[in-house]
Amino acid sequence: MSVTPLPETVAHAFADAWNAHDMNQLADLFAPDGHFVNVIGLWWRSSREIREAHAVTHASLFRDSRLDVLQTDTRQATADVALVRMLWQLSGHVSPMGETLPPRTGLLLFVLRRHDDGWTIVDAQNTDIVEGVLSRPQ
Amino acid sequence: MSVTPLPETVAHAFADAWNAHDMNQLADLFAPDGHFVNVIGLWWRSSREIREAHAVTHASLFRDSRLDVLQTDTRQATADVALVRMLWQLSGHVSPMGETLPPRTGLLLFVLRRHDDGWTIVDAQNTDIVEGVLSRPQ
Repeated sequence: MSVTPLPETVAHAFADAWNAHDMNQLADLFAPDGHFVNVIGLWWRSSREIREAHAVTHASLFRDSRLDVLQTDTRQATADVALVRMLWQLSGHVSPMGETLPPRTGLLLFVLRRHDDGWTIVDAQNTDIVEGVLSRPQ
Repeated sequence: MSVTPLPETVAHAFADAWNAHDMNQLADLFAPDGHFVNVIGLWWRSSREIREAHAVTHASLFRDSRLDVLQTDTRQATADVALVRMLWQLSGHVSPMGETLPPRTGLLLFVLRRHDDGWTIVDAQNTDIVEGVLSRPQ
């Protein structure tokens, strides 16, 4: 488990690990019992599960992908829990047939807990942005 | 602003307000400056915005919809911040043409802060579950 010095640092640390395709580095941002729900509702319940799942997608769909942090929003739920929401753009990802797909954007919420020397992720949830609608049924 | 006596109560309180289509009741579960990201990445930044946005969809797509709580998972980030994730199923929602659509499921994360007399939502993020894939590009 690694820590980030400031809450908002986590967004860039996550993107850096993603872009290095280093899944140990990515999973180490999470507490050992941290949770993560991805954009299609897969629910991982430990940093080990997070590492293993991302290793699969980064060996295929996301192998040459790049994640950019477009914006972050940081709030304190309490002095010891921070909420960082990251507006991201993904590019260079491919279809199962290997075709490059257009860039897409989304919002990733990190819930961070304070430790003596920094912050770790206790929970994260990701949602794709779909333009021009109010909700799914449209 | 209302409070719920236990963190996990919030999932049922949210569903009850949804099913009564009472958007004041729903928005009152949030702190005045609470945030909410919905399933397509709309980002509301106050209980007022949450109330107004839900009033629009509950006058149309979700007018006769029903939200059921299938499962909840509750963890404490700290003694004063709880994380409640709710597996939900929505039914009875319609397309813009008024056709009833099939039930769908998702995961809604609530971040709750403790008050003297209970818990309020400081942040929420919702994600649709898409079966049979690892991530969106598939």
